[in-house]
Amino acid sequence: MTKKNSSYAASIKAKDRANNLHSWSAQKNLDPKVITKAKGIYYWDHTGKKYFDMSSQLVNVNIGHGNKKVIDAIKEQADKLPYIGPAHAVDVRAELATKLLEVAPDNMGKVFFTIGGAEANENALKIAKMFTGRNKVMSRYRSYHGATYGAANLTGEPRRFTCEPGIPGFVKFFDPYTYRSPIEFASEQEASKYYLDQLREQIIYEGRDSVAAIFLETITGSNGVIIPPQGYLKGVREICDEFGILMICDEVMVGFGRTGEWFACDNWDVTPDLITFAKGVTSGYVPLGGVLVRKDIAEFFDDNTLMCGLTYSGHPMGCAAGIATLEVYQEEKLIENSRTMGEVLGEELEDLKAKHPSVGDVRYIGLFGSIELVKDKSTKEALVPYGQDPERIMSKILASLKDKGFSTYSHENIIIIAPPLTIKAEEIKEAMSIMDQVLTEVDEMIN
Amino acid sequence: MTKKNSSYAASIKAKDRANNLHSWSAQKNLDPKVITKAKGIYYWDHTGKKYFDMSSQLVNVNIGHGNKKVIDAIKEQADKLPYIGPAHAVDVRAELATKLLEVAPDNMGKVFFTIGGAEANENALKIAKMFTGRNKVMSRYRSYHGATYGAANLTGEPRRFTCEPGIPGFVKFFDPYTYRSPIEFASEQEASKYYLDQLREQIIYEGRDSVAAIFLETITGSNGVIIPPQGYLKGVREICDEFGILMICDEVMVGFGRTGEWFACDNWDVTPDLITFAKGVTSGYVPLGGVLVRKDIAEFFDDNTLMCGLTYSGHPMGCAAGIATLEVYQEEKLIENSRTMGEVLGEELEDLKAKHPSVGDVRYIGLFGSIELVKDKSTKEALVPYGQDPERIMSKILASLKDKGFSTYSHENIIIIAPPLTIKAEEIKEAMSIMDQVLTEVDEMIN
Repeated sequence: MTKKNSSYAASIKAKDRANNLHSWSAQKNLDPKVITKAKGIYYWDHTGKKYFDMSSQLVNVNIGHGNKKVIDAIKEQADKLPYIGPAHAVDVRAELATKLLEVAPDNMGKVFFTIGGAEANENALKIAKMFTGRNKVMSRYRSYHGATYGAANLTGEPRRFTCEPGIPGFVKFFDPYTYRSPIEFASEQEASKYYLDQLREQIIYEGRDSVAAIFLETITGSNGVIIPPQGYLKGVREICDEFGILMICDEVMVGFGRTGEWFACDNWDVTPDLITFAKGVTSGYVPLGGVLVRKDIAEFFDDNTLMCGLTYSGHPMGCAAGIATLEVYQEEKLIENSRTMGEVLGEELEDLKAKHPSVGDVRYIGLFGSIELVKDKSTKEALVPYGQDPERIMSKILASLKDKGFSTYSHENIIIIAPPLTIKAEEIKEAMSIMDQVLTEVDEMIN
Repeated sequence: MTKKNSSYAASIKAKDRANNLHSWSAQKNLDPKVITKAKGIYYWDHTGKKYFDMSSQLVNVNIGHGNKKVIDAIKEQADKLPYIGPAHAVDVRAELATKLLEVAPDNMGKVFFTIGGAEANENALKIAKMFTGRNKVMSRYRSYHGATYGAANLTGEPRRFTCEPGIPGFVKFFDPYTYRSPIEFASEQEASKYYLDQLREQIIYEGRDSVAAIFLETITGSNGVIIPPQGYLKGVREICDEFGILMICDEVMVGFGRTGEWFACDNWDVTPDLITFAKGVTSGYVPLGGVLVRKDIAEFFDDNTLMCGLTYSGHPMGCAAGIATLEVYQEEKLIENSRTMGEVLGEELEDLKAKHPSVGDVRYIGLFGSIELVKDKSTKEALVPYGQDPERIMSKILASLKDKGFSTYSHENIIIIAPPLTIKAEEIKEAMSIMDQVLTEVDEMIN
């Protein structure tokens, strides 16, 4: 690093520390890296140090950094028409909706665009209430749906607490988190039956005609990459049909190839009534989100007023980035790559689990994986208790990873692995050898 | 229009109608114009018809359309680093925060960035609750703060109904809407006293120590451009200080020169504790919003965890657009132009009020104005009752304006006038002569 670069970085950092508030943190001890460059599966800090971006930032940069096709589309749209209000028809807004419906499940009819995932979930919830005329909504404990009031009240984990006292009618149920189930199940089907029976019973207690929607991350994301057991999602679909409840899949994190399919629900051939999306739709290059709406629900709003709206619904810059991003998925065959590279990642994770006493469980599908850390493999005692980490053990593990060039994030006792879908087998192996080293350090902690 | 252009527009429109859900509307009878071009204070539809953009779209395109400086900044950032997660320090994020704090009231210390206005209000609310440890929040009936659950529950007008049953602890009070006050006040000061006394009494009934924040649009926006009477905002400030309540000014619509000052609160030398912003900060070219946070409140989060976050907090593309937009305000002296052109607009509005029996009231400050339509000037009976317009009278008036090349929007019986801050005197006069014609049509309706 040249002296000039160094003083530039120092001045940026000083301004950041003085003037910016960062998410989900006490600010005093933050020491953010100054980032100046990112390309493919890597980014570089101001010292020139290179990092594997093993979480695709916040599981959104699916196509990797610096994709020229998307950048060119953004530049072209900036020249042409960066913004026009959502009441108008615009080529990129109409084209992106059309393209999304081509890759979405067949039952989907229209798209309502937002600028991010939280607002996608907020609007899906409103659509469900308007369509069904019901007020209650059910969602799960180990879940994250966003940090605005409605999305935070859907959320089951502690990030919802600032949005309490809670909104009336938001009811939580348990996730099929089989690694920590009260019962040792003989099969995935048996696990599904247990959780589905419990959900069905809970709905009856809440009132057979009172629930507008069941919200679920198709695969629970930051809360642990919890993959539904065989039969679970089909069972939720059947319960929704039985009680006239809308099934809303939050695919903000898992959509757009993350799990080896366009949408995670495609892995089990389940068709939700509404799908919320964001992140991967533009790979983060420009903010965009939205709700895919089942045909007859969309038609309901032919005559009934859609009481949803925002200044940046279908922002042309986001739509232009979205069209180009969808083309990148197709041209570079990234959905397929996620599936095949997912197998490589899976093998690596199984090896780590076999080798390290601190690894209680690994879970993976496509290029979406997690490592659950424990103090003891047999008792499954978590490395840090739920909602508590006074010694900041997880921060230290992440810092050690980062120090060695492996960038990702953790949640509770779980480390997320979700690299860009462009990653190659040898890159996975190189990155995961760093993880191997750090897990050896964790093994020593629990000895 | 060439034949090729016409069939292109028809195909865009067909795709839009088939695949896009539009905000705040029943979809069947929508007939959106296909927009292909916008420059300065004008935009053009696919037939080549030109419109005065007399609402700056949704009161956000303050610098006008197609500004080269901002477009270039967007293109440069796209090449450099379109996205990196909010945990990092990035030059544009640090620079924009620094620049914002230079133009904001002196008591502000840090910025938390969001992607839009609703999320700015959601996060301001959470910050106020965390800082004060209190749960209640007060806001006004004739107000709009956004359509996500928290923002919608702050909102007083009917767009909140889809987000009911309401969140516990959200309390509404009356706006100083003197045109329709129950009392004929002798002076603005007297009006302020009446409304402040009422607010203070209401706080005592709600519990002296229970209210975290009073939320208010510094000048009520879409709900009628309701300008606070002299002494009102200072009085709210004093009440907040008396009870340890945070004063939160929603400047999403009125910030960035709209009222002839950087922030609307500058018109009365009032310093809120939090200011929320969006729209004008980038003039809509890229989505961005945020919260300006008073110094000691920002410092509170040195040691206390800020439980706010979103994937696109401080998105680099939005920050780059924001820096350039702030420079445009300064270089093109748009704040000053808003003030001087506001006088021209004010004269035009007063002339219309004097001339047309259908104009009950006009209100204006800087380039933010409204025309309130009535059936009878003396009784002040609104042209359409609150929350009702079965004959779609207001839609017809807007359509007539649009047909003549004057584009804007209305709310209840009120038409909003908020052109880009780049507008010239002769352009205001030309546009308002169209308004004059249409008001003659309205006069005939009420005869």
